[in-house]
Amino acid sequence: MERIYLDNNATTRLAPEVLEAMLPFLTDEFGNPSSLHALGRGPARALSAARRAVQELVGAEVESEILFTSGGTEADTTAIRSALAADPARREIVASTVEHAAVLALCEQLERHEGVTVHRIPVDGDGRLDIDAYRAALSPRVALVTLMWANNETGTVFPVEGLAELAHREGALFHTDAVQAAGKVPVALRGTDIDMLSISAHKFHGPKGVGALWLRKGVPFQPLIRGGKQERGRRAGTENIPGIVGLGRAAELAQSVDHGGMRLLRDRLEQGILARIPKVRVLGDPLDRLPNTSCLAFELAEGEAILMLLDRAGICVSSGAACASGAMEPSHVIRAMKVPFTAAHGAIRFSLSRGTTAAEIDRVLEALPPIVAQLRALSPFTAEEVR
Amino acid sequence: MERIYLDNNATTRLAPEVLEAMLPFLTDEFGNPSSLHALGRGPARALSAARRAVQELVGAEVESEILFTSGGTEADTTAIRSALAADPARREIVASTVEHAAVLALCEQLERHEGVTVHRIPVDGDGRLDIDAYRAALSPRVALVTLMWANNETGTVFPVEGLAELAHREGALFHTDAVQAAGKVPVALRGTDIDMLSISAHKFHGPKGVGALWLRKGVPFQPLIRGGKQERGRRAGTENIPGIVGLGRAAELAQSVDHGGMRLLRDRLEQGILARIPKVRVLGDPLDRLPNTSCLAFELAEGEAILMLLDRAGICVSSGAACASGAMEPSHVIRAMKVPFTAAHGAIRFSLSRGTTAAEIDRVLEALPPIVAQLRALSPFTAEEVR
Repeated sequence: MERIYLDNNATTRLAPEVLEAMLPFLTDEFGNPSSLHALGRGPARALSAARRAVQELVGAEVESEILFTSGGTEADTTAIRSALAADPARREIVASTVEHAAVLALCEQLERHEGVTVHRIPVDGDGRLDIDAYRAALSPRVALVTLMWANNETGTVFPVEGLAELAHREGALFHTDAVQAAGKVPVALRGTDIDMLSISAHKFHGPKGVGALWLRKGVPFQPLIRGGKQERGRRAGTENIPGIVGLGRAAELAQSVDHGGMRLLRDRLEQGILARIPKVRVLGDPLDRLPNTSCLAFELAEGEAILMLLDRAGICVSSGAACASGAMEPSHVIRAMKVPFTAAHGAIRFSLSRGTTAAEIDRVLEALPPIVAQLRALSPFTAEEVR
Repeated sequence: MERIYLDNNATTRLAPEVLEAMLPFLTDEFGNPSSLHALGRGPARALSAARRAVQELVGAEVESEILFTSGGTEADTTAIRSALAADPARREIVASTVEHAAVLALCEQLERHEGVTVHRIPVDGDGRLDIDAYRAALSPRVALVTLMWANNETGTVFPVEGLAELAHREGALFHTDAVQAAGKVPVALRGTDIDMLSISAHKFHGPKGVGALWLRKGVPFQPLIRGGKQERGRRAGTENIPGIVGLGRAAELAQSVDHGGMRLLRDRLEQGILARIPKVRVLGDPLDRLPNTSCLAFELAEGEAILMLLDRAGICVSSGAACASGAMEPSHVIRAMKVPFTAAHGAIRFSLSRGTTAAEIDRVLEALPPIVAQLRALSPFTAEEVR
């Protein structure tokens, strides 16, 4: 049985072209780019080529605005801590209630132990940011606004350009976690008010363990990891050349993705499910969502149980953020959207890739209805009771 | 012309067995180990197997003491910041003047901007720690002692077990940067007073971009990178599974290295050079040095020039720490050893690997004497003048 992988927001398959680009640097081109001898030169050249590819992907002004990290979480941590160090008079942070754990866990630490005030802006039932609450939180005390470009669970896209403009009016820096957006929606930073942006290679068919922080030229910066002079002194440690080369190649490939085709398949899946299965809610912004993501709440069924039965049928999905897995609680995103109790426990995230086929979608549409029906038959509630 | 690579302290060639172990996780086994479906399970198993391999390499008591990072610099940063957070009453750090930049740059930041007092313990002309100065610096105000197991430039090994014992008498935590030691000398942590230890895969034929922090069970800990629940909440971010698998395999391979054979070849190189070239000093502890490292100071010759001419002859070496390259100043390690001016500028580091052959050593012994003679003929000084 060929497995169907619809968990691409958790991680993606490395593109064969990416592996091919990495292999020389996993074999003969193993040198340290800081070395002055022949074996340092190929890796040093590859490092700048990858930087240019990432610059292109995010539409950055200059190559030196790209700073390689070990992934999205490190990039987020670096951005947030750096912004707080920029102006000691500003000791507040604005984030949303649906940010990734990489942002929320750090915010909690800063609030509890480091004297920072954190404003957590709520979202509505469709996962859209409460703009009035956002405006109210902004002030000259705010060091940084950090709002994700797209949500990992629902795919909801925040209007980050406009949000950044509002932040700048109060002199706050603006960071966006674009880990789920990069490679799926156009990102063009030139001319925006965004100051910092995080991406992660493994979310768009690049390797795990590598990401980047885009840092607008002129924005004050403090490194998280100090030491050697790598990355112009902004991120120390021998560069992960194979990983960085893979990120660069993945960035190139991502620019030619047919997002329209991906969206059509996602809609075919979503509409097909809604047509075949009663009492299913689509979670997330109906107007502005990632083209690959469909987060559906099946009333009167346990998400984990659906996931397990789909897995047995060879279909890989997620019942929430991968990071939150293992727990039976609805994720913080679903709780923030105030999804009613009986649906909140039945959320399943389908996340497609550019490799997903119509035949795969049709197999899911066949497999899913009997699974949901079977679980609902076992539910202690009935549809009537929860009305 | 087959290139001779004697810069293994900068980075090493990935062992073919390591690449072979990584490849499945760069292709079909691409899942996120946090995922609950079938594709998460292989990576999750591989993650714990790698943890056990690293546990074996460093002789740790339990598997959960190993925490994967993006490399040595991140591990060092995590250890130092964590130790400082453990007890607010202790605001001093003890390090040596010859630590890696990963430690020294952070110490400088802590001293200049974060109110931490740093004691920098000097070394003697052979790179050995000044034990009296070390004892004098220890007090109940010291949060952490951080001393490297082996020096990256000279190979000098510090007696870390005894040094850790002294630190514990004053209630200080003890961290050691073992990036150059792991895989080259036996590391057996069980029963020692060492609390934390950093390693990096690419220094022993593993991949770049991955390392580990060993953290003794019970030692207080604060994460550097917060977010998801990976690594038991101690290091967030999707695990770099191919890298971690590579680190695990490299750790296994390192345990069967013939260090005696490596040492014989190193001695053949060093003795051969001393016999063929006058006015060469061996830098580092003559009694306790890494078996693969020979740091030699050629009087009246520029290290960078020797490096360039050796490179033209197909021989890769370093003229100091890779991280300090580009600068014409003698490295901080050489300055700390108070190597006389005319020799300090002529330092070359030869660092062998387990793959180095006698034929390679002999080719270096042939190529080097005319290079040094040529450069000395151009020197503005004469041997008489510098006496």
